[in-house]
Amino acid sequence: MDYKSYFADRLRDLREEGRYRVFCDLERRTGKFPKAINHRDGETHEVTIWCSNDYMGMGMHPEVVGAIADAVSQCGAGAGGTRNISGTTHHHVMLEEVLADWHQKESALVFTSGYVANLTTLMTLGQQIPDLVIFSDALNHNSMIEGVRHSRAPKKIFRHNDPADLDRLLSEYPKATPKLVAFESVYSMDGDIAPIADICDVAEKHGALTFLDEVHAVGMYGERGSGVAERDGVADRIDIVQATMGKAIGCIGGYIAGDKDLVDFVRSFGAGFIFTTSLPPGIAAGACASIKHLSEHNELRIRHQERAATLKRRLREMNLPVMDSVSHIVPVLVGDAGLCKQASDLLLTRHHIYVQPINYPTVPRGTERLRITPTPLHDDELMDHLVAALLDVWSTLGINQQAA
Amino acid sequence: MDYKSYFADRLRDLREEGRYRVFCDLERRTGKFPKAINHRDGETHEVTIWCSNDYMGMGMHPEVVGAIADAVSQCGAGAGGTRNISGTTHHHVMLEEVLADWHQKESALVFTSGYVANLTTLMTLGQQIPDLVIFSDALNHNSMIEGVRHSRAPKKIFRHNDPADLDRLLSEYPKATPKLVAFESVYSMDGDIAPIADICDVAEKHGALTFLDEVHAVGMYGERGSGVAERDGVADRIDIVQATMGKAIGCIGGYIAGDKDLVDFVRSFGAGFIFTTSLPPGIAAGACASIKHLSEHNELRIRHQERAATLKRRLREMNLPVMDSVSHIVPVLVGDAGLCKQASDLLLTRHHIYVQPINYPTVPRGTERLRITPTPLHDDELMDHLVAALLDVWSTLGINQQAA
Ligand SMILES: Cc1ncc(COP(=O)(O)O)c(C=O)c1O
Ligand SMILES: Cc1ncc(COP(=O)(O)O)c(C=O)c1O
Repeated sequence: MDYKSYFADRLRDLREEGRYRVFCDLERRTGKFPKAINHRDGETHEVTIWCSNDYMGMGMHPEVVGAIADAVSQCGAGAGGTRNISGTTHHHVMLEEVLADWHQKESALVFTSGYVANLTTLMTLGQQIPDLVIFSDALNHNSMIEGVRHSRAPKKIFRHNDPADLDRLLSEYPKATPKLVAFESVYSMDGDIAPIADICDVAEKHGALTFLDEVHAVGMYGERGSGVAERDGVADRIDIVQATMGKAIGCIGGYIAGDKDLVDFVRSFGAGFIFTTSLPPGIAAGACASIKHLSEHNELRIRHQERAATLKRRLREMNLPVMDSVSHIVPVLVGDAGLCKQASDLLLTRHHIYVQPINYPTVPRGTERLRITPTPLHDDELMDHLVAALLDVWSTLGINQQAA
Repeated sequence: MDYKSYFADRLRDLREEGRYRVFCDLERRTGKFPKAINHRDGETHEVTIWCSNDYMGMGMHPEVVGAIADAVSQCGAGAGGTRNISGTTHHHVMLEEVLADWHQKESALVFTSGYVANLTTLMTLGQQIPDLVIFSDALNHNSMIEGVRHSRAPKKIFRHNDPADLDRLLSEYPKATPKLVAFESVYSMDGDIAPIADICDVAEKHGALTFLDEVHAVGMYGERGSGVAERDGVADRIDIVQATMGKAIGCIGGYIAGDKDLVDFVRSFGAGFIFTTSLPPGIAAGACASIKHLSEHNELRIRHQERAATLKRRLREMNLPVMDSVSHIVPVLVGDAGLCKQASDLLLTRHHIYVQPINYPTVPRGTERLRITPTPLHDDELMDHLVAALLDVWSTLGINQQAA
């Protein structure tokens, strides 16, 4: 086979569809966020980032940066091994205690990413618990889908955020059959939020374990910031909470929290946990500092929600097609891959605003969008600039303002 | 189902088999490696680490630690997004250039870990190249096995390091059938090394792509340290080289390098690359500094090999059952899970030496072992201490000295 031309052809198809991804080459600068330097065609420009998942700016926070710098100079760079083979440091042990306490669970387990946390946990439970059936929300993230698929456990997809449909599917199995319901709290591309209590009611009725991905919620919801389950007062009804330290926490890494034996089970049998170098101790120290700060500063969350609400209101006032979102995520519909990329390019080159186009397979075709993420650090002036720039881009490219 | 007792039972089985993993809670200290502080039962002790995969001590190197500290204070903690959505920083771009140059390939792609690099690359190629058949060495690492398995491409397992068996299996398919041969250079538990040139001969004859995992070789073999393929003068015959930045490089993260379009293909279609937060820029900066240092200091590799050869010789002189190894890895056979754990415990408590027991599933049952990894920083005095301690443990526990 001619591998070379096969790869070249497939890449050409992506380009023709407008889906070929060009990464923005950024230089983040502490103290300057949401501003950053963009490297392009050998030149550099200052841009405003409006699509970061460093939702609270914690990746730039002096306490986080300081904790990492201290830990790195004291303990070095990498962990030096897998968790089992010399790669568990005291910072990992402390981080798992902090995480368990944050979620009010007995135990927590850290993975190299939220992706690996989802993949490994779902795959391990699906493979190891005899006859387990997994019920998965239709819009679950790729990392959950892969975990379920890879486990080869039978799976049932329930309609997005629809407890009645979940109930219907669960009813097809006797109560004694082991079951697991996997869903997210905040869905990151649409910004809608799951009816967690209702889903727990249904799961409980059928004796199913609940697995909740709070990747886009930790740090941002609840009085102590541990997520939507905390905000809704239902954290104790979630058997396994999963999240990332790479978004609002501002670092990298993922985790689960739950009952001691369940977590120990995943620790003992999860291939994606066992066979990989553990997170650098400095990252663990940074995540601890970030969680401490986030849990103690609810005013950040209030400001964050106000920023998102204000931006949504202002865009609607201008007839820009903000999609329905009840969270901090502000998606603006374009509806075409090529146009979406052009809009993003024009924002960058003409207005020095960086919002990455979101195309298939991240979102369904026809719902291509600009996904805007205001942080507590995006002030009114930056917002004025964004709204004006979007209006200019929409009229330059003739994008339909009523599309959403 | 009673999930709680199911988990508890399975964990009890592990304990009874002596396979329940207890992690050593360590405090690494820059400037002190291979010494570290061990937290145990509320007390702390200084121990010597003899099982780190920070093979060259680079995780503690001032140039690496300095590069990370600088980058973190300039650019902050996390990347703030996936590679596509605001998470590509200039440090990532530079790291991929450094890696491509190191391996003399057109292009490189960074993943969050070597585990994810293997899983994602093999899964993507196996899923996307129509009719691809994957030929996998019998002792390949779990991350490659999962990648192949998850791709659902047909797979054939060839006998470990056996080009004749590979040839036989490849011959079952017409030349036009797309094929990929996946293998490692240094096998980390036994310390043997693949006959790369012979495997490439066979692969070439049958028109197969070659995929080589150099996770336990980068930094340690070859004049410029890029691995066994470089040492053997066959780097240009490898289509995809994969490795980690978490072992000899002393940081975390994984990568592949190869032809531009092939790498771009994995970048464009690899779910485990696309749907996850990218590495912190500080880690990318640390890895760059480490690779620069390693590539320029061949004397470190000479010293490293001398240390390993000396340790193997000294253990053999004492009739301790060193397993055959032609690399820097020094496995000492115990042959029983419970005994292996006891030997490790006694080394730690009586001699303040830390060598983690290696049990099933990491190695086959009956080949449980202590896996010792001397670095250039383990001097003669530390070696005297280790040899004496092993002799004491072997005689205290009555382990067979002729077992290997
Ligand atoms: C819902 C969801 N879960 C999991 C992940 C993966 O987390 P991480 O970025 O830490 O790998 C993401 C995105 O990255 C996500 O959006
Ligand atoms: C052969 C091999 N490949 C890949 C990996 C995974 O690399 P990483 O630790 O960077 O995930 C490991 C061990 O960790 C390994 O031993």
